[in-house]
Formats: sequence, C-alpha cells, structure tokens
Amino acid sequence: MKNKFEISPTTRLRRSPFFEATVSEGVTGFYPYNNMLMPTGFGHPEEEYWRIINGVSMWDVAVERQVELNGPDASKLAQILCPRDLTKCREGQGKYVALCNHDGVIINDPILLKLSETRFWLSIADNNIVLFSRAIAAERGLNVNVFEPDVSPLAVQGPKAEDVIASIFGDWIRDLKYFWFKETEIEGIPLQVARSGWSKQGGFELYLMDNTKALALWNIVKEAGKPWDIGPGNPNMSERIESGLLSYGSDTDDQTNPFEIRMGNYINLEVPNDTIGIKALRKIAAEGPKRHQIGVILDGDTPSGVVAEWLDITQNDKTVGSMTSGVWSRRLKKNIGLGLINIDIKIGENAIVKTNNGDINCEFVDLPFL
Amino acid sequence: MKNKFEISPTTRLRRSPFFEATVSEGVTGFYPYNNMLMPTGFGHPEEEYWRIINGVSMWDVAVERQVELNGPDASKLAQILCPRDLTKCREGQGKYVALCNHDGVIINDPILLKLSETRFWLSIADNNIVLFSRAIAAERGLNVNVFEPDVSPLAVQGPKAEDVIASIFGDWIRDLKYFWFKETEIEGIPLQVARSGWSKQGGFELYLMDNTKALALWNIVKEAGKPWDIGPGNPNMSERIESGLLSYGSDTDDQTNPFEIRMGNYINLEVPNDTIGIKALRKIAAEGPKRHQIGVILDGDTPSGVVAEWLDITQNDKTVGSMTSGVWSRRLKKNIGLGLINIDIKIGENAIVKTNNGDINCEFVDLPFL
Repeated sequence: MKNKFEISPTTRLRRSPFFEATVSEGVTGFYPYNNMLMPTGFGHPEEEYWRIINGVSMWDVAVERQVELNGPDASKLAQILCPRDLTKCREGQGKYVALCNHDGVIINDPILLKLSETRFWLSIADNNIVLFSRAIAAERGLNVNVFEPDVSPLAVQGPKAEDVIASIFGDWIRDLKYFWFKETEIEGIPLQVARSGWSKQGGFELYLMDNTKALALWNIVKEAGKPWDIGPGNPNMSERIESGLLSYGSDTDDQTNPFEIRMGNYINLEVPNDTIGIKALRKIAAEGPKRHQIGVILDGDTPSGVVAEWLDITQNDKTVGSMTSGVWSRRLKKNIGLGLINIDIKIGENAIVKTNNGDINCEFVDLPFL
Repeated sequence: MKNKFEISPTTRLRRSPFFEATVSEGVTGFYPYNNMLMPTGFGHPEEEYWRIINGVSMWDVAVERQVELNGPDASKLAQILCPRDLTKCREGQGKYVALCNHDGVIINDPILLKLSETRFWLSIADNNIVLFSRAIAAERGLNVNVFEPDVSPLAVQGPKAEDVIASIFGDWIRDLKYFWFKETEIEGIPLQVARSGWSKQGGFELYLMDNTKALALWNIVKEAGKPWDIGPGNPNMSERIESGLLSYGSDTDDQTNPFEIRMGNYINLEVPNDTIGIKALRKIAAEGPKRHQIGVILDGDTPSGVVAEWLDITQNDKTVGSMTSGVWSRRLKKNIGLGLINIDIKIGENAIVKTNNGDINCEFVDLPFL
C-alpha cells in the first residue's frame, strides 16, 4: 500500500476495549484482525522497536480473541480440534497448537489454555474459529458451548517485562513457566496472567476478563512500568520476522500444512482418529512436505517498505516459492523475509525475489534470523 | 472512528484485482471485508451518492468472494447449507439465502448462483464460508470440492446501468430477470453478467473470471459508460440504509436469526431435516422471533457521522434494542438507522438513542425508508 487511506467507519469492525487508551497514546495506524482493529504504530518506529529488544513495551492485542469451549464435552472437543496430544495438559497450562481442517491444512495457530477439565480457551490468530468449532461440535453431537467470552489480552513484552509484571502482581509470576497462566485480580480487575506473547524477547499477556476495566488496567501497567521506561507498542513486524515467528494468514495459504511451516514438532500423529485432519497429516508426514519455510536475506542495505503481497522467488526463471512476509531488519541492517519454498531448495542457495521495483538477489538461510 | 489512521501493510490483506484502477480513480478510503479491502469513497461523497440515485456508478466489489461447490454432491451440499427450497432453482438462476449455523443463527446472506447441477457459487458477505462449508462437506462425507475461485465482481449500479451494460453486451441483458445471470465474454475477458447488486437502484454485477484482466474490464465499462456520465463509487451506506438493505455483521450479532431481520420470506421450513439449522428455525418460527428489524429516524436535521458501533436504544431508561447502523439520509435530510428492537415495540413509538454526543429522540418506522 503506497498511500495512506482512511479506515471507514462500520459497525462490522468492533473496537478494542483499549481503543481509547491507544488513541491517547498517539496510535497512528491499524490493521484489521478478527473483525477488530489492531494498533500498528505510535509514530516512533525506531524507538518502539528498541523498546521491545532492550526494555519493555505494552501492546493492545485484544484482537487475539478467545474461543471458549465450555461444558462436559469441552475436553473431547479440544482434542478433536487439536492434532496435539492434550492428555497430559494440566489446568493452568497453555499449548501452542496447529488447528487444521480435514485436509491437514492449517486454519489457525492458537494457544490452547486449559482453565479446567470442562473449560478451555483457544487464543486465536485471524480466522473465524468460533464458526468452525461450533459447526464441528454440532455435527459430532457434543455437549459443549462454544462462544467468544469477554476476554481481551494486553501484552507486556521485552526483557524488562518480568520486572514490571512482578511489581504489579508479586514475585510469584517469576515462577510461571512458558505458556502457563494463573487467574488473579488487581484492584478488582479480573484477569489471567500468562507467560506468553508474540515476540521472542520474553513477556506476559494479561487476559482482561472485564472490558469495562480496560482503561484502568492500561493505566496500572503504564504507571507500574515507569521505572523501566515502559511505552506503547504492538507486535513488531521486524522483531517477529527476525525471530522467525509465524503470522497465520500472512505466511500461509489455502494449501499450507503444519510440516511446511516448522510446526511439525507440535503435531502428534498418534492422537485419536477422530481428531480433525489427523489422517491427512499422517499421510503428509509419511510422504514428506513439498515446501518448507526458510529465511530470505535480500541483497542491498537500503531499507524497503513492509511487503504487502506475496512475492515470487525464482531460480533460472523458474518459480521456486514465495516470500510471504518481508521487512527491514534493524539489527541485521538487511531486508529480510520468510520464504515458503520448494523442499528441494536448500539453505545457502541463491535466488531472485521479484519485487515491484525489479529483481533482487537473495540468499536462503536458517530460521530464526536472530 | 474520529481520526484518520493508516491501514498498515500486511500480506494477510489481499488486494482486489481492481485495486490499481481504484487508486487511479482517486480512492480515499477502504474497509476490510473477507480479508480484502473494499473502496469506501472517492473524495466526492455528495456527487457519488446522486450518481447512484440518478445515474450510473461502477464499484469494485471484488470483496464479494465466491465459494464454489463443485462435484457430484454440490447440489446436495447447497441444500444442506441453505434453508431455502432449491429444488426449483434453475441453471443461470440466483437465489438470496440466509445461511445459518446449527442454532438457526445467520452466518451469511449470500446470493447462491447455480452454474450447473454440479457447480454452485455462494457470493458471500463478510465471513469465512469456505472454512465452514468445507468442514460440513467433510463431516458429512460428501464428494464435492469447496474452494474460492478466481472470481471478482465489478458492480454497475443506478437507473442508467442497464443502458451501459446493454451497450457493452447487447440488448439481451435487458431480458435478464433479477438474480439471473449468464456466462459471456467481452474482448476475450471471461465473465458472468448478473442482474444484481447491493443497491435498490437497479443494476448488474460482472463476475470477472480472470483477475489478470481486471484493468481491461474496468476500462471497458468506464469507456462504455461515458455517454451516461458513469463514475466510480462503492456500496453506499446512505442509499443502502434508506433502501433497508441488510449488512451482515453490521446489523447482526451472534444471536440473530433470519426471522428477526426480515429474511423469513427466504426460509422454507419444509426443506430436508439434514439442512443445517432447519430444526432450530422451525422452533423459532413456531415461537415467534424475540426481536425485529425496523427503521429509526432521529430528531434533528444536522448530519452526524456514520455510526461506528451499536448504540443502545431505550424507553423509560430501559434498553429495548440497538441501532445497528446509522447514517445521514441525503434524500430524507434526517439521520436514520436500522434498529434491532424487542418485538413488543411497535412502529410509530418513540424512544431514545444513546449516542456519544448525548441522548437523541427517535421514532420507529417501517422499512425500507425509501
């Protein structure tokens, strides 16, 4: 997108409960996600980046909606939806899962949070998983309610996030393991505190469970973070690509299976046969995936804009894959991207990225970049 | 939304094939729809409105994606998805349908286009119906492919649209009945010509079947329309509310059934029992819906902005429903909206709309307004 355009008002787009707070902080842009708007910047991109790498940043990620599975068959439905062994998942534990359709194509990469034996949340990426999960529950005749609860995460990310969160909730949060969470409250605001977040710099997500208290929670975190120079931010395109984090819907297409995008380790082929997609996944695992996700480093050292559409990658004028996301890396001082590339193309090979500004040489590298 | 914010680039948002054409025409805003961006204005709102009412307007509505059902069981799947009798639907005929989930809650209001006994399109509003339909087909073990084909509609709307379309394709298009369509081509561009469109001013939709030819098609229509002073436009919020047209996702919530939103006439309760939601719809029909969609005319004659979130409507301090969309009517010279209101509240009654700028008196009226 070359220019700035208005995001026109419509009641189809729901507001984040943190919307007014982010406007006060000077939010400059958004993109749509789960029929909501996610902040994408606050006018100081350089500063916002280094705050995540070296300090602590707070993010409105209310767009990470929850799909609640609630009822006697919640546990059964969770295993039907998730091709990962959940038998050892404990209350208070989260698991990263590759939700798939019946063909083994990934349809989301949520964190599954087990609140109890009869209550789960899928903390989802951008896709209508309520619609899908309800349909499956109804088709299988399960006794479970599927709905979107009033839950909106606020992320606190960066190496100093733990100190900020401990100063609010106490030192017990230092013992939370990755993806584990605990219900608590602060000044009467109910929430789940989880060690998670869409960066590799460490941090927490506060799952706010009462949207009327969003501004109060924002201000508590902002105030507590002052000694560590906290500031507003958002999931950072540069940091997430450097860290090799997947963006479902950006780096996947209508054919992508988990083995192609480095999610094979989160698949258990021995889950029950009634798990959606497991038969297709077993076949793909046996035959081997046809593509793999690898890093792309482009020649040159002039920052180019964020890539807004998949770009063809060629060798000898033959398309070998696509660059699915691309951005300037502030640490590598190179334009980098994620490639979804034919499996026979290896790390270390060179190729051509077909950009709107002409052909650019590139090299394939291992992920993550950093 | 008070301010203008940037729509940040991401490969999650797909471009319309008409994107470059609309940029050349001076598009000023967008909103997201089916993970694409729909143009929402070209800088001359007054002129763009009257062009639809009195002349002819051309719209990039590529966001109206198609869900193709293709294969031996396509017809069976169509009837499973649609609680409307399709047994008499003929090839070349379209039908407006209320897709529902198993609870009888509307999940989309597409036009179903019957291309052949084994091939259907659902021309959808904003929701992931590929995901849903594939899940149902797989759960029921049907022999049918479900996918999004390379099809992008270009709408030509307004009282002079028929003359423009006839000048391109010939006078046979004057005999097309409402929602009927025919495959043809122009200068080698394959498309379906349908009498349809999201306005009540009459017109056609050209379902482009080769996205590489979008600019060529745009220019053919633009050139042909010159004698009738054609210009760029988009589905017009003012015209569609005046005409009482539903916006799925704007005027519906997670509980809305078709009987609440004037779609009862499109439901056939005698469709087979395996049609999704039909048992719930029969129950709702027997008990009667709890809400109804009616018109809201607000006091005052100062244009207010487009409503960006549902507004409470009260009588005697008790909430009786919501205004789900709202806009200034250029013909009525009033602020008007669609209300989703308790069934016991009747046309002619007065109430209060709770806006961000205070309470405003309103009256309930029949739909459409015009």
